[in-house]
Amino acid sequence: MGKKIVIIGGVAGGMSAATRLRRLDEQAEIIIFEKGPYVSFANCGLPYYVSGEIEERDALLVQTPQSLKARFNLDVRPNHEVLKIDVENKQVHVQHEGNVTQESYDALVLSPGARPFVPPISGLAEAENVFTLRNVPDLDQIMTQFETQQPKKAIVIGAGFIGLEMAENLRKKDLEVTLIEMAPHVLPPLDEEMAKFVQQELEKNGIRVIVGQSANGFSEAGRKVHLEDGQILDSDLTILSVGVTPENQLAKDAGLELGLRGGILVDENYQTSQNDIYAVGDAIVTKQQITNEDALISLASPANRQGRQVADVIAGQKRKNRGSIGTAIVRVFDLSAASTGLSERVLRQTGRDIEVVHIFGKSHAGYYPGATPVILKVIFDAKTGQLYGAQATGQKGIDKRIDIIATAIKGNLTIEDLPELEFTYAPPFGSAKDPVNMAGYAGLNLIEGMSQGIQWHELQEKINQGAIVLDVRTDNELKAGQFERYVHIPLNELRARMAELDSKQEYIISCHSGQRSYIAERMLQQNGFNTKNLDGGFALYRTVRPEAIYHGSNN
Amino acid sequence: MGKKIVIIGGVAGGMSAATRLRRLDEQAEIIIFEKGPYVSFANCGLPYYVSGEIEERDALLVQTPQSLKARFNLDVRPNHEVLKIDVENKQVHVQHEGNVTQESYDALVLSPGARPFVPPISGLAEAENVFTLRNVPDLDQIMTQFETQQPKKAIVIGAGFIGLEMAENLRKKDLEVTLIEMAPHVLPPLDEEMAKFVQQELEKNGIRVIVGQSANGFSEAGRKVHLEDGQILDSDLTILSVGVTPENQLAKDAGLELGLRGGILVDENYQTSQNDIYAVGDAIVTKQQITNEDALISLASPANRQGRQVADVIAGQKRKNRGSIGTAIVRVFDLSAASTGLSERVLRQTGRDIEVVHIFGKSHAGYYPGATPVILKVIFDAKTGQLYGAQATGQKGIDKRIDIIATAIKGNLTIEDLPELEFTYAPPFGSAKDPVNMAGYAGLNLIEGMSQGIQWHELQEKINQGAIVLDVRTDNELKAGQFERYVHIPLNELRARMAELDSKQEYIISCHSGQRSYIAERMLQQNGFNTKNLDGGFALYRTVRPEAIYHGSNN
Repeated sequence: MGKKIVIIGGVAGGMSAATRLRRLDEQAEIIIFEKGPYVSFANCGLPYYVSGEIEERDALLVQTPQSLKARFNLDVRPNHEVLKIDVENKQVHVQHEGNVTQESYDALVLSPGARPFVPPISGLAEAENVFTLRNVPDLDQIMTQFETQQPKKAIVIGAGFIGLEMAENLRKKDLEVTLIEMAPHVLPPLDEEMAKFVQQELEKNGIRVIVGQSANGFSEAGRKVHLEDGQILDSDLTILSVGVTPENQLAKDAGLELGLRGGILVDENYQTSQNDIYAVGDAIVTKQQITNEDALISLASPANRQGRQVADVIAGQKRKNRGSIGTAIVRVFDLSAASTGLSERVLRQTGRDIEVVHIFGKSHAGYYPGATPVILKVIFDAKTGQLYGAQATGQKGIDKRIDIIATAIKGNLTIEDLPELEFTYAPPFGSAKDPVNMAGYAGLNLIEGMSQGIQWHELQEKINQGAIVLDVRTDNELKAGQFERYVHIPLNELRARMAELDSKQEYIISCHSGQRSYIAERMLQQNGFNTKNLDGGFALYRTVRPEAIYHGSNN
Repeated sequence: MGKKIVIIGGVAGGMSAATRLRRLDEQAEIIIFEKGPYVSFANCGLPYYVSGEIEERDALLVQTPQSLKARFNLDVRPNHEVLKIDVENKQVHVQHEGNVTQESYDALVLSPGARPFVPPISGLAEAENVFTLRNVPDLDQIMTQFETQQPKKAIVIGAGFIGLEMAENLRKKDLEVTLIEMAPHVLPPLDEEMAKFVQQELEKNGIRVIVGQSANGFSEAGRKVHLEDGQILDSDLTILSVGVTPENQLAKDAGLELGLRGGILVDENYQTSQNDIYAVGDAIVTKQQITNEDALISLASPANRQGRQVADVIAGQKRKNRGSIGTAIVRVFDLSAASTGLSERVLRQTGRDIEVVHIFGKSHAGYYPGATPVILKVIFDAKTGQLYGAQATGQKGIDKRIDIIATAIKGNLTIEDLPELEFTYAPPFGSAKDPVNMAGYAGLNLIEGMSQGIQWHELQEKINQGAIVLDVRTDNELKAGQFERYVHIPLNELRARMAELDSKQEYIISCHSGQRSYIAERMLQQNGFNTKNLDGGFALYRTVRPEAIYHGSNN
């Protein structure tokens, strides 16, 4: 008999570790304890079963203990809860059907995951219709609620990735859905202006969105949800999805060192503060690869990779956790929204000197039918051009653009390298200049001083300081709305009408999306005017600050 | 008045140069001579107008001289053919409506493109129904042929990217289409086994495919097409698309240095052998970035970038042609096929020590509805892991995977880095382990000696030398066909039945696609057996060597 390896947690990280270990070592004894009834289930698919988009519950159950035994000779034990790690004696205490037994180990892998964070809301203990969604039993509970209570009104508390998926799927089941988010906008990992497109899509599809509010109480067994501002909402079914927290109890009790927000501390080989105890997945503190700072990253992709790598480490191979950048996507009805790396908000908080570009492109060549808008935001270092992050939203091709930039970040490419990227181009798939290339060109123009950009959130202050918007859209486009303080000269007339402008005045140039205004900027800059280009133009500003757009005759 | 810049060629490279030049220099005089009647047209869209998929001819005409004048103050002159470059006097001789005039320049940019290569086929001069497709007048001719002749039978000679697009669009117009390719398989830039999926799709959609044959004569004014082997085919309409060749006549006449296959030689700043004469686009010799060897790359993306960069150079900015890797895609009915970098065939010809992996993955999570197969091939250096190229085929998500690997190549990532890439994952978009990640894992297993792969083209020789296929598919899967010489033990029975195997025998392990056979390989390798894993398994082998698959009872 070979080494005896015990793994706690039978989903992404744990199961990747187990199967890889077997491929590395036919002789090892490999036992997987899973607290719940299922292992290796598709946790990212759970919300889609609610609406019936995934029709078969079995589709969520990717592997069974039987299939894992047959193929990998794994000893998979569901419904086995590890109560305690006895570090001294290298054994775990395991409870199954009321009995507690001990199991020794040569190496122990913790892959307990993260559990939904449950905020201390009054009345929660008495609420009968409030659920979190982490695993198949949670899902079964929600489905039972549907069958027995026929809920009509649902409230989703928390508008992160899972919250949005739940809101969408409940709405697709024809419920009246209200989404509540404590942050100033939905999808807090994204920046406000990008998240606003998502909020519009939610509202377009009949979801009521309340931001900047938290729920602070339940009453009537959960039928009433109380918000901070005093509003009381009716709910037949409430989903709590306000984030996750590392499942660290076992580690804590065993005296393992914990770090950031209770995450289990591991070295770059996934070893905890105890010899022979390793940890992977959502429960560990990892490095945000871009900043090299500690981070908790709860995503399937890093968890799977870590599971595989810890198996290599245990089998004596060299393998190092290089950290994660955090790449994620959500589909909300016809729209997708995705991000990789760090947001503008986080970067500005850390005081980095950054530049930002927004590109309004198309999913594929505009002259080929079916092209849809792609709005791509790229954030990079103002001096070195290092790529810090990107966000995108649109109907098609959003995953592709963010995956490309995630790859560019991993390859240490800079904004200057983006124009060099050569993509598959045929009319149904892309453009000769992809939005990613365009972001590179626009970014390079900023770095090289060919353009001075200002962001949407800087405009109001500029106007307050006396700047005027030079709107270079066409007469017709102006009907969509106007800026607070502007002069209007269509781009194609600008050369002829330049004399109308005041060389002492600061102009913020805007067009629909920021591309034509850049052309105007070049023209005016070469003629000695004091100008800046409004990045993302009217289209972006209108989305994020609709209240600052005026309609009617010229003001 | 500023510098006077003359640009020859008003499509991708030339027009990118012109508009960028204007943004850099308001004072410059910029003249664009275009031989044809249109500038800045969507040449990649032309085939789709044939079938009516692009309905409006105007959609192909992206810009007009008027719009370019209004916005960029460009002097765009269509129907102006430059007959001669007078290097000595720095002027060009231009013909327009029968008159020849001279135009001086301070800087001259050549962006003449590449023209369809027309092979010396007998009877071509008399043929009335044979066309090439490079520009809008070519397209108009073809459309006129449709209107006046109502063709029923079409022949496309050449099965490269354009040839396939033409074949598809003619078929969608309900013609009887025959596609003829001189190379042993369609889509010669791809390797044979990947191209075979495309051939299957063509045939499934009613296109007759003849490979390994060239057309060597036309008779009856083109109504008869003669093939090398003596076959004579009827044709109402023939499209010649056997590749392109640099449009180099002007450059040649002016005494500019030419290189590889007549391409215009330029330095890394796009300067030709003459001061003040620059060249960009399909006509120039560039570097294949992976090998740093001279290459002709006729793609829109590099041409656009080069045009922009040469403008920077002329305006006095530092900009360098870093070369191209060559990324391309084609859609053929429901299938797409794409490639980036170098093919296995080309790499083996150069004698490089390479490894190859084929991954059979899915476009997104298999448990979410609508996932389709993604077949991804990655080619890399056997020692360093340097990525040399990738090819992929499938219905969805092909562009994304190749774009990711194209980015990885540009970032100098290795096969070892692919598992580290973090992609947008939600069930509708991807998998926690994307096919790109899987290719990295599989490649790493080869480099680290965890697996010994053999390719489909090596199997027959192995069998001839006495190897036996160990087929680990299920009983049921075996019904799809069997290898020439095999033993069959389903993977899940292999541990128990290992004694049936001969430790002196070499086994080539195969399953459906190569993943389960790898699990079997690990099992057997650890038990001392002599094994190799058939990369891509039965599914790939059956596609590329259907004649070597047997049907019926165990042989």
